[in-house]
Amino acid sequence: MKLGLVGATGVVGGTILRVLEERSLPIETLFAYASRDRSETIRFQNVDVPIFAATAERLAADAPDVVLFASSDDASAELAEAIAARGAYVVDNAATFRLDPLAPLVVPEINAHAIEAHHRIFPVANCTAIVLCMGIAPIARVAGLRSVRLASYQAVSGAGRAGLEALAAEEAAFASGAPAPEASTFAAPIARNVVPQIGSWNGLGGEDTGEERKVVAETRKILGLPTLRMAATTVRVPVRTAHSEVAFVETLRPTSREELAAAFAVAPGVVYHADGIVTPREVEGSDLVHVARLRPEPDSDGTFFQLWIVGDQLRKGAATNGVQIVETLLTRGALA
Amino acid sequence: MKLGLVGATGVVGGTILRVLEERSLPIETLFAYASRDRSETIRFQNVDVPIFAATAERLAADAPDVVLFASSDDASAELAEAIAARGAYVVDNAATFRLDPLAPLVVPEINAHAIEAHHRIFPVANCTAIVLCMGIAPIARVAGLRSVRLASYQAVSGAGRAGLEALAAEEAAFASGAPAPEASTFAAPIARNVVPQIGSWNGLGGEDTGEERKVVAETRKILGLPTLRMAATTVRVPVRTAHSEVAFVETLRPTSREELAAAFAVAPGVVYHADGIVTPREVEGSDLVHVARLRPEPDSDGTFFQLWIVGDQLRKGAATNGVQIVETLLTRGALA
Repeated sequence: MKLGLVGATGVVGGTILRVLEERSLPIETLFAYASRDRSETIRFQNVDVPIFAATAERLAADAPDVVLFASSDDASAELAEAIAARGAYVVDNAATFRLDPLAPLVVPEINAHAIEAHHRIFPVANCTAIVLCMGIAPIARVAGLRSVRLASYQAVSGAGRAGLEALAAEEAAFASGAPAPEASTFAAPIARNVVPQIGSWNGLGGEDTGEERKVVAETRKILGLPTLRMAATTVRVPVRTAHSEVAFVETLRPTSREELAAAFAVAPGVVYHADGIVTPREVEGSDLVHVARLRPEPDSDGTFFQLWIVGDQLRKGAATNGVQIVETLLTRGALA
Repeated sequence: MKLGLVGATGVVGGTILRVLEERSLPIETLFAYASRDRSETIRFQNVDVPIFAATAERLAADAPDVVLFASSDDASAELAEAIAARGAYVVDNAATFRLDPLAPLVVPEINAHAIEAHHRIFPVANCTAIVLCMGIAPIARVAGLRSVRLASYQAVSGAGRAGLEALAAEEAAFASGAPAPEASTFAAPIARNVVPQIGSWNGLGGEDTGEERKVVAETRKILGLPTLRMAATTVRVPVRTAHSEVAFVETLRPTSREELAAAFAVAPGVVYHADGIVTPREVEGSDLVHVARLRPEPDSDGTFFQLWIVGDQLRKGAATNGVQIVETLLTRGALA
């Protein structure tokens, strides 16, 4: 398999390279692309790989069998359809194609069945939606879902390297006794703070932010529940790479904590903590999504539950989910 | 008025002293107490005040008209009833009397009417419950409340000075490149982390933590809605002193964002942000509770809303609310 990676120098791109190595995908040739030609190389499987500008001409000449996009929305919007037109596959971390009815939005543990033979473009869902769906899909399978309410605790890496650097710089300012830092990457300072605004937003209080709209729409698509009642408030927190989420779910049928625990026990990719807690810092670098504190709401009739879901947004929320899509295509013989 | 302060050397006690000065309460004599006699003094209204051990004998001899407790649950449990028995007033930040049916749980902006002439012990509610109630009481007044779901983002000062010091020490370790710090004050490390466990807990996943039980029970009592359907997951975040909360509320009667905005406009102590956001760091040190991002849930029929509530847990969540109770008693002539 010849694999292309657009955005190879970014933080998601770097994570994709690590995940590809860890999972030993059968890659014969790696092509690395960035927004422009680079003088440095990246190291992959003990080989120094040059980095070229991601242009339609370069991609056509290299002719990778599959191209992973881990850069801006613009890159895949410009390049993906030409790649698909020559029969190659696109796995795209950008938002461009996620709600396209012709593109499946695949979290392999949940809806690999959505993949059809003619599909060539595979968007990777929003990281918060992926982590949420990993945590609530087992509940949906057992008891159905009537409504979902989400409050998120989202890591700074969701804003890429700039987000990680902003947190580190603000922490360093506090540690050195410097004046409290101003906002840079985020809508407000992030160290010693939490910020209830993620993604594009017109600032109008009555409207959801871009992140909230993504999470709602993409969760519905992944779960195949287009009319699921759902609300989300998404919040940035000073955590490096793992997202945490409090979800309040209402099921269609009464169920119990025990029945749900049994569902989680057989859910691939999910670690269910019957007791105790799990925090984002301890799951960073892992591909698994963790669920803890699942419990019925007080005075509930068996249809209202709350739970705590944690997953690394660079890994399962982006890189790993994309690589799993490639693995799924390989398994099906789509990539010879 | 002669005023006693038990826990004068703690972080809530220090905040109470500042609030008493700022609001110019008519204090003739301040008595300061701690768990033991101290050699240092505290400064109050340009006077150095000695600090004595809080014993029943000392309090009986000093005979303050009102005693504020800002220390452990044990101190008020041991001392409060004797103070009340001699006709003086107790304002208690501990949990001991909060759910006592004979004690009113007063947030003056919301339920000052709960105070009766014979009341002597006034517990100050849990900080998260106070901030929540300030944000949802205006909604309850306009449209009633059928259910409330809460996900919190709670500051480290909720664990007192130890919490503030733990955050600073862990941040310093990261800044110096030292190994990632271990958990100390909290159930898990708090820098670059969020921790879904606050208060006493048996670790059993099916049960609420102590903090969650407090928030649910005290919110019901403050709002006078003993059967309010409510669920909470409470989470510690690396923020210094202001709590933030995402609340999902269901009203009894359909209402609108405009009608609720009008209710917030006349709600004392609340700053309503029709547009834009507010973050905990910018409200720290203020007595006001801020509400932003109030909006109907998507596809809602006018009875489901979500909102973001922020307030300083040392100020309105503890010290200020206690001082406001003293002010209310003064206004009513209870304290001559």
